[in-house]
Amino acid sequence: MDKKTLAIVGASGYAGGEFLRLALSHPYLEVKQVTSRRFAGEPVAFVHPNLRGRTNLKFIPPEKLEPADILVLSLPHGVFAQEFERYAGLAPILIDLSADFRLKDLELYRKYYGEHPRPELLGRFVYALPELYRDRLREADWMAGAGCNATATILGLYPLLRGGVLKPGPIFVTLLISTSAAGAEPSPASHHPERAGSLRVYKPTGHRHTAEVVENLPGRPEVHLTAIATDRVRGILMTAQAFLLDGWSERDVWQAYREAYGGEPFIRIVKQKKGVHRYPDPRFVQGTNYADIGFELEEDTGRLVVMAAIDNLVKGTAGHALQALNIRMGWPETLGLEFPGLHP
Amino acid sequence: MDKKTLAIVGASGYAGGEFLRLALSHPYLEVKQVTSRRFAGEPVAFVHPNLRGRTNLKFIPPEKLEPADILVLSLPHGVFAQEFERYAGLAPILIDLSADFRLKDLELYRKYYGEHPRPELLGRFVYALPELYRDRLREADWMAGAGCNATATILGLYPLLRGGVLKPGPIFVTLLISTSAAGAEPSPASHHPERAGSLRVYKPTGHRHTAEVVENLPGRPEVHLTAIATDRVRGILMTAQAFLLDGWSERDVWQAYREAYGGEPFIRIVKQKKGVHRYPDPRFVQGTNYADIGFELEEDTGRLVVMAAIDNLVKGTAGHALQALNIRMGWPETLGLEFPGLHP
Amino acid sequence: MDKKTLAIVGASGYAGGEFLRLALSHPYLEVKQVTSRRFAGEPVAFVHPNLRGRTNLKFIPPEKLEPADILVLSLPHGVFAQEFERYAGLAPILIDLSADFRLKDLELYRKYYGEHPRPELLGRFVYALPELYRDRLREADWMAGAGCNATATILGLYPLLRGGVLKPGPIFVTLLISTSAAGAEPSPASHHPERAGSLRVYKPTGHRHTAEVVENLPGRPEVHLTAIATDRVRGILMTAQAFLLDGWSERDVWQAYREAYGGEPFIRIVKQKKGVHRYPDPRFVQGTNYADIGFELEEDTGRLVVMAAIDNLVKGTAGHALQALNIRMGWPETLGLEFPGLHP
Amino acid sequence: MDKKTLAIVGASGYAGGEFLRLALSHPYLEVKQVTSRRFAGEPVAFVHPNLRGRTNLKFIPPEKLEPADILVLSLPHGVFAQEFERYAGLAPILIDLSADFRLKDLELYRKYYGEHPRPELLGRFVYALPELYRDRLREADWMAGAGCNATATILGLYPLLRGGVLKPGPIFVTLLISTSAAGAEPSPASHHPERAGSLRVYKPTGHRHTAEVVENLPGRPEVHLTAIATDRVRGILMTAQAFLLDGWSERDVWQAYREAYGGEPFIRIVKQKKGVHRYPDPRFVQGTNYADIGFELEEDTGRLVVMAAIDNLVKGTAGHALQALNIRMGWPETLGLEFPGLHP
Repeated sequence: MDKKTLAIVGASGYAGGEFLRLALSHPYLEVKQVTSRRFAGEPVAFVHPNLRGRTNLKFIPPEKLEPADILVLSLPHGVFAQEFERYAGLAPILIDLSADFRLKDLELYRKYYGEHPRPELLGRFVYALPELYRDRLREADWMAGAGCNATATILGLYPLLRGGVLKPGPIFVTLLISTSAAGAEPSPASHHPERAGSLRVYKPTGHRHTAEVVENLPGRPEVHLTAIATDRVRGILMTAQAFLLDGWSERDVWQAYREAYGGEPFIRIVKQKKGVHRYPDPRFVQGTNYADIGFELEEDTGRLVVMAAIDNLVKGTAGHALQALNIRMGWPETLGLEFPGLHP
Repeated sequence: MDKKTLAIVGASGYAGGEFLRLALSHPYLEVKQVTSRRFAGEPVAFVHPNLRGRTNLKFIPPEKLEPADILVLSLPHGVFAQEFERYAGLAPILIDLSADFRLKDLELYRKYYGEHPRPELLGRFVYALPELYRDRLREADWMAGAGCNATATILGLYPLLRGGVLKPGPIFVTLLISTSAAGAEPSPASHHPERAGSLRVYKPTGHRHTAEVVENLPGRPEVHLTAIATDRVRGILMTAQAFLLDGWSERDVWQAYREAYGGEPFIRIVKQKKGVHRYPDPRFVQGTNYADIGFELEEDTGRLVVMAAIDNLVKGTAGHALQALNIRMGWPETLGLEFPGLHP
Repeated sequence: MDKKTLAIVGASGYAGGEFLRLALSHPYLEVKQVTSRRFAGEPVAFVHPNLRGRTNLKFIPPEKLEPADILVLSLPHGVFAQEFERYAGLAPILIDLSADFRLKDLELYRKYYGEHPRPELLGRFVYALPELYRDRLREADWMAGAGCNATATILGLYPLLRGGVLKPGPIFVTLLISTSAAGAEPSPASHHPERAGSLRVYKPTGHRHTAEVVENLPGRPEVHLTAIATDRVRGILMTAQAFLLDGWSERDVWQAYREAYGGEPFIRIVKQKKGVHRYPDPRFVQGTNYADIGFELEEDTGRLVVMAAIDNLVKGTAGHALQALNIRMGWPETLGLEFPGLHP
Repeated sequence: MDKKTLAIVGASGYAGGEFLRLALSHPYLEVKQVTSRRFAGEPVAFVHPNLRGRTNLKFIPPEKLEPADILVLSLPHGVFAQEFERYAGLAPILIDLSADFRLKDLELYRKYYGEHPRPELLGRFVYALPELYRDRLREADWMAGAGCNATATILGLYPLLRGGVLKPGPIFVTLLISTSAAGAEPSPASHHPERAGSLRVYKPTGHRHTAEVVENLPGRPEVHLTAIATDRVRGILMTAQAFLLDGWSERDVWQAYREAYGGEPFIRIVKQKKGVHRYPDPRFVQGTNYADIGFELEEDTGRLVVMAAIDNLVKGTAGHALQALNIRMGWPETLGLEFPGLHP
C-alpha cells in the first residue's frame, strides 16, 4: 500500500513527540516533517532520546512546512485556532491535539477557556474518541483529540450513563495524573527536587476538561473533577463515585459495559477477585493504547466506584488520535498501537 | 524529672518501631523492653537500621515482659483484646495502636471486624486524637490510637461538621495511602517489582476505618471511603468532597477551621494562592506529627474539596499516640515530636 | 511463512514472562505452551497483567509439555542441567536463559557455582550474544542466554579489548542494577517499604557474572564487578574504569567502537556534548533491545570511563535470546524487537 | 545559656535552607536574618514548606544584613570571595558553604575552578570536617564547609590512608548522587518528566571535588571520581575500589576504621552478614548527620570495596558545618543534629 505522508507541528513537546514515536513505526505512514521553533535544526533524537537510530529527521521551523496528506497539530492551546487558515491549507486531513476544537458548545468553551477566535468552526471537528464516535470518524477530515483526563473519565462513565444505571445526582471524579501532563516546559513547579515524591493537589476544582466530559456523556450529567498529580511521569488513574439506581446490581453494571464496549480492541475490563493486580493500574498500560476499566459496588449503600487507567500520552492523546486516523483511512484499527506494555 | 519506664509490644513492626523511634528521643521516657517474637534476641537495629547507634536494646519475646509505667501495644488486630488481662496487669497506662478498642459502638465493630472478644471493654479506652478529645485524654489511663486513614479523614472534616457548614448528604473521601500501611510482612502484593510505580486501588469500598470516622464525626455523617495505594512508603493524602450549605462562603469555612483548631500545635492550614507548594502534601510532613489541612471551594457549584496530609506512621499512628501520652502525663504536648520535616 | 511453535518453561517468572511478551508479538512464532508449577491452571494474565487480552494461554505444569520447534527454558539455575535429557528431547532448538550452560571453562564454573551436574555439556551451547557470536549462532541449535550484568559489561568493554586500546591492568566495573533482577519471588529484602528509595549494595565482590565476562572478553582481562541495586524495576547502567594506552586518544576509542559495532542493529553510541540526555541512561532503553554505549576520556590522566545501558530483561535476557533465535532461523534480526522505548 | 545570633546568606537555596532548618531547632542559636534576593519579602515557608509554623522570618535582600555573632554563607561559588570584606565585617564567626575557601593549594584551585579572586585568603579557613580537623575547629573563626561528594569520599577513605593499609595506586570512586545536589534553580535537565526514573551519568571525569579529596587525604593519593545521579532527591552513596596491601586482612581494615573513628558521634560502621540492610544506604541516613561506612574484601584478589552513605545536605553540607560550629563554640557536638532518620 502507498504510504501517506504526515507532518507534525509541535513535535518537540510530549504529545507531538508521542505521535511521532507511533507514526515512525506505523507501516502506512511516512513522517515527512516535524516542527519545533526552539529546536529547529536539531535532530529529533536530541529531544527524544528514545528515537536515536530510528529516524534522521530534524526539527524545522513551522514556516518551512510543506503540504502533506495528514497534518497533526500539537500546539499550545489557542494557537491553531488563531492560525487556522495557514495550517488547514496544508493538508486535507487535520488532527488537532489541543483543546481548540474539542467542544461544540460555545458557552462551555467560554466558561473554561474564554473567547474563541473562530467560534464558527466549533462543531466542525469530530471528537476523536473511537469508542463513542467511530462511525463519524470514518468520514472525518478534521479530528480533535480528546483531553487526557476527559478520555479517562468519559471512557469510565460512558457505558453507565448510556445504560442508565446510575441514580441521578452528582458524580465525583478523582483523577490521579502525572507530571508529563504539564508539558515539556521547565518551571519552578516541575523542578525535580520539588516535584519528586510529592502528591500535589493540582486542580481541586474548576478543571477545564469538565467541559468535554459533560458535553460527551449522555444526558450531560453533573460531573465534578478533582485532579491530583502523583510523581509518575505517565499515566492517569480515574476513580468515579456515584450511586446505582435502587434495585440494580453488579450484573447490570457488567451488562452496561459489555453493551457499550463489546468488541472494542483497546478496552479491557479489569476486575479480579484474587491476585496481586485486581483493578486497573496505569503502570501496566504505560506505553500502550489500552484503557483498563474496573468497578466495585458497595452492596449496602449502592455506591459504585468506577476506575479507569490509561497512559495520558497514548490512549489519552496520541494513541486515540492515531486510532481515529486508522479508522478514517480504513486501515486496521490497531495498526501501530500493538505494544502490550511491560511487566514487571 | 524522673523518667517514666515504657515497654513496646510488637516493636519490630512499623507502628511499634515508629513509637520506639520517638520514645528513644523523648526526654522523659525510658524504653525498657521491646518485644518481637520473630526477632527475639536480635538488636533493635537489625530490623530498624535508622536506630543503629541509638540504643542497645534487643528484642525479647512477649513472655519476658516486666511491669512498666507505660505499655504500648502494637499487635495484630484482635490479639490484645484476646490477651487483655495479661497485658493490662503490666502497666497502669496502656496505649493500644490496634483497632481493638477504638470503637464504642458494638454494632459498628461487628459490621467491620466481626465479633469482639471483650465487648464490655468497648468504651473504656479514650480515642487518642488530641484535637477532639484533649480533655478526656488528660485523665485517660487506657488510650486507643486512631487508625491512620481515620485520623486524616476526621481531622480534615471535623471542623466542618462541628461548624455545621456542610449541606447534609454523602461525603466522598479518597485516600491516597502508602505501602507501609500494609505492614512489615512481605507478600506477593508487596514484592517491589510488582508494587513500585503502581497506583493500586486498594479498598474501593467497605473500608474498616469508616466505622471510626462515622463514630467520631459530629452527627454521624454518611462518609464514603475509597483507598488507593500510591508507591510512596509513608504518607496519606485525604481529599473529601461535599457541598457547602447554600449561601455560605469560603469565609465560613475558614471560620470553622479556626474555631476548631485555633492553638492546635500540630495542625497547619495550608492554602496558598501562589507558589509551588499551595496545598497539603504528605511529602512535606514525612517524619513529622503535623496534619496539614487545606480546602478549595468551587464557587459556581458550592462544592468544597478538603485536603489533609499526614505521615501515616507519625500523626496517623505513633505520633498522635505520643502526643496523647504527653497530655496524659502533663508534659509539654510537643515533646519528642519536634522534627520539622525535610525540604527538598 | 509457516510459524514455528514455541514453548516456554518457567513463564511466570520475569525472564520467561518477558520472552513470552516478545514471542506473542513475533510474526513467525506461535507460543503453544507455557509452564508454571505454582500458577498452573491460571491464565497468563493473572501473573502478567500487561498480557490481558493478548493471549488465552494458561500455565501448565512442566509435566504436560509437548514437543515443539523451539523450547525456551527459564528455570532456577541448576534445574535444566539436572533434567537435561527430558527437556532436550522435546525440541530441536533449545534456548536456556539460566547460567547452566553459559560457561565453557569448568574451573570458572566451579569457582562461582560449584560442581556442574553435566560438565561434558559445557561448551555445547553457543553464548547467545549476537554482537560477539553472530556467525556461530546461525548454526546453533542450543543457545545459552548471557547474564544481564555480563551482557552490559561485555558489550561496553568488548570493542576496547578487541581493539587493544586499554593499558593492561584491572578494569573496575560498577553495575547499577534493578529490583527485577532478583526475580519474582517475594522476600523480606524485596518488601516494598524496605526496598523503595534504597540504594542497596547488593554484591560488592565475588559477582558470579565475572566468570562470563572474563571468558568472553578478548585476552581474559582482570575485571572487577561491584553491583549496587537502585530501586528502578528494570535496567542496568554499567560503568567501567580503566586507562587508555599512553599516547592513544578519544579518536582511537571511537575507532574501536566503530570497528566492532558498525552495522549492529541494537547498539547505539550515545555521547553528546550538549543537551539533557548526553550519556546512556537505562530509562530510555526500557522495554527495548538496545544497548546504549558511551564513554568519556579524562585527558590529563588517561582514565577512560565506559558506560552501557540496557534493559536487563530485554537486551539483558529475553531480547538478545530472541535476537539470537532470529539469527538462527534466518529471520530479520530485529523481528519482534522493534519497540523504541518511551520519552518522557 | 545566652543564645548566639546567626544570619544566613542565601537561605532560599537547598544548602542554606538546610542550615536554617537545623538552626531553628538548635537550643543555643537564634536565627535573626535570612537573605534571598529572589524571595525577599516572602516568608521562609513560601520556599521551604517544611518550615510552616516554625518561624515568622521573612527573606531580606542581602543589603539589609545586620551584624550577628555567626554568619553562614551559602552563595554561588565565587560570590563570597568577591565580596569578602563586606561579609567578613558582619560577624566574627564565618561559615562558608561554597567552594571558595575549601582548598589550600592554589594550583589545585586553578585546575578545577580557575583564578581565585583572593588567593591570599586560601588556607585561612579551616576545612569543617570534624572527623579530620576537630582540634583546629575548636579555635576556628572562619570555617569552610566541605563539598558533599568530598565528604563522603574522604570519610570513607581517610582511615585506610591514615592506617596505610592500601596498596599504592589509583583509587576508583563511584558517587551515586541525587537531584538536590544540582541546586534549587530549575533547568531543562531538572524538569521532572526528563529527570524522574533516570540514572544520569553526571560527571564521569574531571569532578571538582577531586581537589578537596586529594588535598585532605593523607599522602595525596591518586583518586578518580565518577558521579552518577540517581533520581533520589537526597543522599550520596560512595563506593571506592582499591587493593589491600599484600598479606593484610579484613582485621586490619577494621582496625584502621576503629583507630580513626573510635568515639566519633556520627560515624557508624555498617557491615552485617545477614539481614535486609547489610551495608550503608543513603535512604536510612536521610535527614540525619550520620555517615554510615562499610566495606567488603574480596579474598582472592585483595580488592577492597568501601562504601559510605550520607545525606548530601546534612552530613554532606549543613550538618557537618553545624557540628563544626558546635565544636567551635564548646557546645555538645551533637546539638541540633539528633534526628535518627526514618524506617521504613
